[in-house]
Amino acid sequence: MKLDKILLDHGSGGQLSDNLIKDLILPAFNNSILDGLGDGAVLEIGGAKLAFSTDSYVVDPIFFPGGSIGDLAVNGTVNDISMCGAEPLFLSVGLIIEEGFPVEDLETIVNDMGAAAKKAGVQIVTGDTKVVTKGAADKIFINTSGVGIINYHKMISGASAKPGDKIIVSGTIADHGMTILTQREGLKFESEIKSDSAPLNDLVKKMLGASDNINVLRDPTRGGMGTVLNEIAEQSKIGINIYEENIPITNQIAGICELLGFDPLYVANEGKLIAIVSEEDSAKVLEVMQAEEFGKDACIIGEVTKDHPDKVYMKTRIGGERIVHMLSGEQLPRIC
Amino acid sequence: MKLDKILLDHGSGGQLSDNLIKDLILPAFNNSILDGLGDGAVLEIGGAKLAFSTDSYVVDPIFFPGGSIGDLAVNGTVNDISMCGAEPLFLSVGLIIEEGFPVEDLETIVNDMGAAAKKAGVQIVTGDTKVVTKGAADKIFINTSGVGIINYHKMISGASAKPGDKIIVSGTIADHGMTILTQREGLKFESEIKSDSAPLNDLVKKMLGASDNINVLRDPTRGGMGTVLNEIAEQSKIGINIYEENIPITNQIAGICELLGFDPLYVANEGKLIAIVSEEDSAKVLEVMQAEEFGKDACIIGEVTKDHPDKVYMKTRIGGERIVHMLSGEQLPRIC
Repeated sequence: MKLDKILLDHGSGGQLSDNLIKDLILPAFNNSILDGLGDGAVLEIGGAKLAFSTDSYVVDPIFFPGGSIGDLAVNGTVNDISMCGAEPLFLSVGLIIEEGFPVEDLETIVNDMGAAAKKAGVQIVTGDTKVVTKGAADKIFINTSGVGIINYHKMISGASAKPGDKIIVSGTIADHGMTILTQREGLKFESEIKSDSAPLNDLVKKMLGASDNINVLRDPTRGGMGTVLNEIAEQSKIGINIYEENIPITNQIAGICELLGFDPLYVANEGKLIAIVSEEDSAKVLEVMQAEEFGKDACIIGEVTKDHPDKVYMKTRIGGERIVHMLSGEQLPRIC
Repeated sequence: MKLDKILLDHGSGGQLSDNLIKDLILPAFNNSILDGLGDGAVLEIGGAKLAFSTDSYVVDPIFFPGGSIGDLAVNGTVNDISMCGAEPLFLSVGLIIEEGFPVEDLETIVNDMGAAAKKAGVQIVTGDTKVVTKGAADKIFINTSGVGIINYHKMISGASAKPGDKIIVSGTIADHGMTILTQREGLKFESEIKSDSAPLNDLVKKMLGASDNINVLRDPTRGGMGTVLNEIAEQSKIGINIYEENIPITNQIAGICELLGFDPLYVANEGKLIAIVSEEDSAKVLEVMQAEEFGKDACIIGEVTKDHPDKVYMKTRIGGERIVHMLSGEQLPRIC
């Protein structure tokens, strides 16, 4: 069925987003770099190999436990560039602000951005500010784009996973998405949960230094881990097996997901990555990750197989097996 | 007076925008590249000299005579990169779409972007799509960022104007802004006026090839020519003299501006540039410009002087002289 209106699902990062991009956007822009559909584009300019990425942030609420739209916007693009195997260097910032927005909040947000940039070791070098009439935007939207340099010898991409490779996740899943949801709904829990928003460039640098056989890096933001693994399975034309009992998740987040009926595999993360690494290097990479602040809970959660290409299978905790599909429908609008 | 709410004027490109950037944003991001405040940042990465720029487009209406938000978003960033003396190569696109937006309009817009990219000879290599709930954004906002390579031997920047240099404008002013305004207000005139939205990278390439003495390139978008000349005067610590009778403007646009009470010096352009060139090369550069599609109406409109630093003076048509200030207040919200 061809839809005639844009739905929230078109922005979910899941199946309908995928359709929109493949049916409408890729044909219009028509080039092989874009067709790669990574977290960023890999470019050759003047002899340098660069990664270039963009993301708009529309998260609601704009302040939440563990961060704000400001640091999220910096960390998100730092991470997208890192997922290309690049060292992020420079960011741009585009602000769209609603008339009447408190100057004090803007000051907090840009200070959060400055602090996040400093922490990640990147510079915000160019920007743009637009103000729209009251009601034409909800508070503030932020676009960040970024440029980084690639020194790694091989192409890291969603199309590079190979049978036998191990799948590593850098830490607990679903923290960001459930934090935003519970904030938005005004739900209170005994102990505070918070967003995992964090820059992953240092972690990636250590990983790339430890192994020449890192094939895929992706950060499971919108659409969550389940969607990203499906994208990799499709792009690499391989199958993926994961083991539910190996997936790191806090008891608290698991409990909230169960209570509210969310599958944590589809909930957004903002400070986690999935790495697909050759079997022989996987223990070494895992060890390096676990020594880092943002990788201390890293686990091997599965492996790549030549069986069932394009499909992700999960062995459940109770011993069954199920197919993990791409997210269909929108779990949570404005999660990032 | 310190304001506690963001006003439309903060997005005007004029005085209040300038205050916001200098008082709040530059201190938060704190680096010397950003402090340059050009249309883009000039970066050195891996031995290559690059320009990097970003802009968000919130124009209303999204379709107008002469273009749409789609080609405007491509041309705008192509031009910002060109104004760094760079050849634009790669663009990113960030879409923020309101739930319920017609898919057909989205298709028109992305096709306009694809066509504009092709015309300018750039590739759209990475992107992001967000959908927000109905009412949380007005129709569609587009961010484009871009990267280009700089091969010109000298630094082109707003700080490089020198006494004696000539000021060239590439064609008629105020077409874009007055087109948007009249569309929005539903005003009809005998002959159609249209936006000047156009890519200027080819024009700039020819200019840079013709002279080693191009010191400043700027495109007078929001805030118009009056504001941009003031920024240059301030950044270069020089004075500027312009001559009203030399400023190219169609009779029609001049008439509409007079009728509606707009000063064309402050009305946005989307396919024009201001070049500041050494006196000895100015005739040669002008000739090259006039041979190009988007420079055929180019004129020398004034010169740089060491008198009255930081100030722009205009000799009026009737023989008087007045100071041209930076735009204060917002002429037209959502002009680009």
